[in-house]
Amino acid sequence: MAEKIIIIGGVAAGPKAACRVKRLLPGAEVTIIDQDSLISYGGCGIPYYVSGDVADEKELRSTSFHMVRDEYFFEKAKGVHALTSTRALAIDRKNKTVDVEDLNTGKVSSLPYDTLMLATGSTPVQLPVPGADSSNVFTISDLHKAVAIKEMIAKGLVSRAVVIGGGAIGVEMAEALSDLWGVETSLIEYMDQLLPGIVDKPMARILEKNLRDNNIDLYLNEAAEQIITENGKGVAVRTAKSTLDTDLIIMAAGIRARSELARDAGLLVGATGGIVVNERMQTSDPDIYAAGDCVEIMHLVSGQKFIAPFGSMANKEGRVAADNMAKIPSTFKGGVGSFIVKAFDVSLGAVGLSLQAARAAGFDAELSLSSPSDRAHFYPGQDIMCIGLVFDRRTRKVLGLQGTGPVTDGLSARIDAAAVALCAGATLDDFSNIEMAYSPPFSPAIDPINAAAYIADNLCDNRMRQLSLEQFYAWMESPATNPERVVLDVRHPNQAEPFVEAFGADFWLSLPYDEVRDRFAELPRDKELVIFCNAGSRSFEVQVFLDHVGYGNNIVLPGGFNVIRRMGADWLPVD
Amino acid sequence: MAEKIIIIGGVAAGPKAACRVKRLLPGAEVTIIDQDSLISYGGCGIPYYVSGDVADEKELRSTSFHMVRDEYFFEKAKGVHALTSTRALAIDRKNKTVDVEDLNTGKVSSLPYDTLMLATGSTPVQLPVPGADSSNVFTISDLHKAVAIKEMIAKGLVSRAVVIGGGAIGVEMAEALSDLWGVETSLIEYMDQLLPGIVDKPMARILEKNLRDNNIDLYLNEAAEQIITENGKGVAVRTAKSTLDTDLIIMAAGIRARSELARDAGLLVGATGGIVVNERMQTSDPDIYAAGDCVEIMHLVSGQKFIAPFGSMANKEGRVAADNMAKIPSTFKGGVGSFIVKAFDVSLGAVGLSLQAARAAGFDAELSLSSPSDRAHFYPGQDIMCIGLVFDRRTRKVLGLQGTGPVTDGLSARIDAAAVALCAGATLDDFSNIEMAYSPPFSPAIDPINAAAYIADNLCDNRMRQLSLEQFYAWMESPATNPERVVLDVRHPNQAEPFVEAFGADFWLSLPYDEVRDRFAELPRDKELVIFCNAGSRSFEVQVFLDHVGYGNNIVLPGGFNVIRRMGADWLPVD
Repeated sequence: MAEKIIIIGGVAAGPKAACRVKRLLPGAEVTIIDQDSLISYGGCGIPYYVSGDVADEKELRSTSFHMVRDEYFFEKAKGVHALTSTRALAIDRKNKTVDVEDLNTGKVSSLPYDTLMLATGSTPVQLPVPGADSSNVFTISDLHKAVAIKEMIAKGLVSRAVVIGGGAIGVEMAEALSDLWGVETSLIEYMDQLLPGIVDKPMARILEKNLRDNNIDLYLNEAAEQIITENGKGVAVRTAKSTLDTDLIIMAAGIRARSELARDAGLLVGATGGIVVNERMQTSDPDIYAAGDCVEIMHLVSGQKFIAPFGSMANKEGRVAADNMAKIPSTFKGGVGSFIVKAFDVSLGAVGLSLQAARAAGFDAELSLSSPSDRAHFYPGQDIMCIGLVFDRRTRKVLGLQGTGPVTDGLSARIDAAAVALCAGATLDDFSNIEMAYSPPFSPAIDPINAAAYIADNLCDNRMRQLSLEQFYAWMESPATNPERVVLDVRHPNQAEPFVEAFGADFWLSLPYDEVRDRFAELPRDKELVIFCNAGSRSFEVQVFLDHVGYGNNIVLPGGFNVIRRMGADWLPVD
Repeated sequence: MAEKIIIIGGVAAGPKAACRVKRLLPGAEVTIIDQDSLISYGGCGIPYYVSGDVADEKELRSTSFHMVRDEYFFEKAKGVHALTSTRALAIDRKNKTVDVEDLNTGKVSSLPYDTLMLATGSTPVQLPVPGADSSNVFTISDLHKAVAIKEMIAKGLVSRAVVIGGGAIGVEMAEALSDLWGVETSLIEYMDQLLPGIVDKPMARILEKNLRDNNIDLYLNEAAEQIITENGKGVAVRTAKSTLDTDLIIMAAGIRARSELARDAGLLVGATGGIVVNERMQTSDPDIYAAGDCVEIMHLVSGQKFIAPFGSMANKEGRVAADNMAKIPSTFKGGVGSFIVKAFDVSLGAVGLSLQAARAAGFDAELSLSSPSDRAHFYPGQDIMCIGLVFDRRTRKVLGLQGTGPVTDGLSARIDAAAVALCAGATLDDFSNIEMAYSPPFSPAIDPINAAAYIADNLCDNRMRQLSLEQFYAWMESPATNPERVVLDVRHPNQAEPFVEAFGADFWLSLPYDEVRDRFAELPRDKELVIFCNAGSRSFEVQVFLDHVGYGNNIVLPGGFNVIRRMGADWLPVD
């Protein structure tokens, strides 16, 4: 009798595993069960469907050769049964059956399995605020909701929207609503930055400025406390400080693993809420596999478990699960949290740990900040990236890389290379020698990833001393808190001039880089010098020289004006 | 007394090491010697200067903050002496001196050193053909020649040009001459493909088609035998088959390490012609370092030595040399040959070994070919990449990755990630799980690098059988050589139709992917089926099914129509 393989969940990990295992065991009877009527779609594409970049929701569930991945497709093309609108109710591990309900008929039946796989995904966090059940409050969790949102907008019913949550989905949805539809969009984030836990403040500030420059109103450090309703419709979102009128509310306050079915069946579920699996993607019952958003995986930098809710990871995990179902001993060792998001004309990416996360995880972590060119600086169209490299002083290991850049694939290239290196436990020395393909249209001779490691190496060996951007901003906002400190601007005098005018020549000293060696004696000996340039590299060079000639009371501002202008500040005299 | 550090060579590795060691040892006396009057330039930018993308040669030797890196700059900004127009004649290792000649005055003097570094670079191969010394024959080796070429073109003296050599510089120069200046350009390559040794034929063919489509005339398998001259000027290049009239001749026939000075001083020079160095970048004399194009380094895939003539590598090696001069025990372990080139609207990249190089190096190598989308296939502007992954059947190690794509940084991202993985000795299983940052504007959920590994995994485990593109092309050009073979096109009938019309329904069978399971019995049992689709993945799926139902006489065409249309063929019925 044919081996029976049942896979619960039909979005990403499930279909991947189903098709792979069917190819490995063509004689097996493979069945996907999903409570939705639509399956095998690119959920990450929903913001681009809402924005209109993708015209039809069918494109999100079509192959590259334009076949819609529906029940017919799975049956005919893949030889896989897909039971849609079918909810898995319970797993009987002893008798190896799954109880399912046909949601159209209400009929309950029991399906036998030899091997079972859980790909139950994740569910959006529903904030427990009054009014959250209003008809115009949507999570970004399935295609039906996406269609409903787009219909509302297309009908002209949405002139204002509030997005609750400043993670990737919140940011992408804010862009989708504002950019192409011109919806007046506000975004509320409970923490004091966008993408908390993913990037540190400098990168978050760059993203925030970019959103504000594109007419998204940000409400950081605020929590949605109530959705004010009229006739069952949310008409405003109230925080402790603000009341935001709205026609549409997107709730993007994070996700949690959908692991109830597993838990009810007595399978181990971790503290993250994700199903516990081994490297073969087996749950605590070896005949039951799990993959995708519903499992917790090893973070290969922190050594801790985490949920990695990405379609890309779901596919990899699903394939490994399928291999093992077919007795091929593939393993999935974990992940490093590779992440990238587009917001208007900025890309923001990260991999590994942020400084904050690294310190919370016990590392003696530090951030090296830089702002290199994304390709040869003489090549037309070059742009600046802002790169943060997080490293551990104790082991010299790189813990993470984060950055912003233009919307090319240039940032991806650095994040992806770093991801591979992080998985290999790479040190600063390894990062210094990562061999990025070099040609002026694609990269500078000293690649941003190498340059970031060089700076970190100088920091780690205490050859460079830096002021964090947070410290610099705090001081610039209240210079009186440290009156013994002045800025030494080593850029061209034309660039320094507006700052000298704004802050005075005693506070903002201008001494060009190439004149420091001849004129350093003009510098005050009784002040701490914050050395300032465009990218930080000249500042470091000046620091080394000033230390050498006995002006050691100085500190480098890393990343320099390139970063600050992208972060923005009220006190900046130039745009 | 200050430590004296002399660095011979002022283009890339030399200036990098000089500035780094000066920062590490601010009290040292650091001197760069170069026979040229212009130093510290981005030689890789020369094609973009000639094309006009870069207006002024000064941009190639300027910092990102627009200071020209001349003697003044090194002295004032870096604290480094630069002796330009000064040729190093000989090294006296016993007395630790370098004899130098001031090329302006002819004066010879002897400079003492404590530590010496050789960064003498490479020299272009001068083909020993009659007429090669004509005034309009140029190598791409320094800025003076670049200026001279551009002047000739700008004066309208060049309506036709011949480029000798189909490596990266030859390709870039052909584009530079043709694209912006409209020069009728021919390119001669001795081997039967462009970029021999770097990529295999399918990728080379894609590049070749792209050049031809952009009006570059290619003469492959031909050698320049004579430059016909008139009044000291080359007026035509003659090969065994062709005579190409020309106004300008670019000789780009490769480079060799400039290691004479080292050899004359008794330092070890390897079989590659490069100076032998250890991982600390020390030559066989521990007080003499060497870095850049003049050294041979370890190829971390083949285990053999090679010359890596890239400014990016020179910078890394120079930094490691400087660290060691300052007693910091940094190491440089070698490289994997990361490579990328732009040609019109195509990017071509490679890292590690080509199939041909891998087999020559003794590996049981095979090529997995695929043609995935570079980002989510539903995202606007997505494009197809062609990816070749070379792996070793015996160890399952990945040996190389090569590809073509649009001129975004998307190909870079895959080459760079692969470079890091190759350095870590990654296997197919590691490549299957490389965690590329996923978001629809930047990547598909199953990244091309993962997909390439999946296919290779199926090949390596003998789950997939493939026909090489070379074999397919040979057969399509002479179908009679194998009359027992037919094509099974599983694409949509609309796509198959022109092929069925051109070749007949008995030769080019059309049976759509989603109908194979119902209609396979219609297929001939006495023929070998070459399964054909757009990208190869449906073909593999059909192969698995046909094998299962007893139609095992079939073989997959990897990469499918996506690759073939980019390679081009006379027999293709569609464009």
